[in-house]
Amino acid sequence: MIVLGIDPGTACTGYGVIQGEGMHAVSLVECGVIRTKAREPLAARLLEIYEGVRELLERHRPDYLSIEDVFYSRNVRTTVVLGHARGVILLAGEQAGVSISEFPPAAIKKAVAGTGAATKEQVQFMITRLLRLKSAPQPADAADGVAAAIACLMGANVPRMPAVRRIGPVPR
Amino acid sequence: MIVLGIDPGTACTGYGVIQGEGMHAVSLVECGVIRTKAREPLAARLLEIYEGVRELLERHRPDYLSIEDVFYSRNVRTTVVLGHARGVILLAGEQAGVSISEFPPAAIKKAVAGTGAATKEQVQFMITRLLRLKSAPQPADAADGVAAAIACLMGANVPRMPAVRRIGPVPR
Repeated sequence: MIVLGIDPGTACTGYGVIQGEGMHAVSLVECGVIRTKAREPLAARLLEIYEGVRELLERHRPDYLSIEDVFYSRNVRTTVVLGHARGVILLAGEQAGVSISEFPPAAIKKAVAGTGAATKEQVQFMITRLLRLKSAPQPADAADGVAAAIACLMGANVPRMPAVRRIGPVPR
Repeated sequence: MIVLGIDPGTACTGYGVIQGEGMHAVSLVECGVIRTKAREPLAARLLEIYEGVRELLERHRPDYLSIEDVFYSRNVRTTVVLGHARGVILLAGEQAGVSISEFPPAAIKKAVAGTGAATKEQVQFMITRLLRLKSAPQPADAADGVAAAIACLMGANVPRMPAVRRIGPVPR
């Protein structure tokens, strides 16, 4: 199963592509960020995000698109602009015909690090462990995209796994 | 000059296409709504809105896309979902290469009815007068799309008009 995880943002959209069946044989395929220029109009930035996500969907043909749900910041304007970015990402996913999963930030942290209150460092540490990497994906937004993908892979596999199989960190 | 005005909404996106030079020879070309089903997932509804707007852009080839800016309602969730709809509409406009104008709701009311505090009825009355219609465009969301188009046509023409030419309601 291939999952494209996305942490949406107008300035910087992080993404991670992972492959595996459950968390036992999972590996990182690719991660990175789609950056847009702050001086460009919002419509132009949305087009860049949309085309970037489309390119990823075409190249990796994931089974799932996992996207971080809106984070309700104190600044409503920021949250609303983020909604615009999520809109074009969901559109790209719908056009590609992938299954779309949305997870609140806390659910992603819980899936990756065991608690919704995990710090960024804890999440990055667990990503590094789960994917057997030498260091955490950089920049941080890319790691957040990978985390969204992991949350989906674990969540999506739950129904397929009878009671016996343990869902958790990769055994050492 | 042809203007496509849009009042975005996830359930119902209103639109109006008007044609004219300033407000002296303006006419309504078409208006209507793009409705989506509440039981559909958000991504599917966004695709419907996107395809509806693309179809309008292709058919009318407007010079301007005029879109109502976000209305910050008390319900932040509503406002954020609206941001998703605006995102795919801005994307469609950017892809079509039209000039995009965004107006806050109060600016649209002011342009059409002279005051940002105008009621829906006042705005509909003025649209009917300005476009020499027998009755206000129906449903209300379509009228809001038309109002956005009128605000753009008036605003966009200001720089082209030297002091002499009067911008205002069509003379009786």
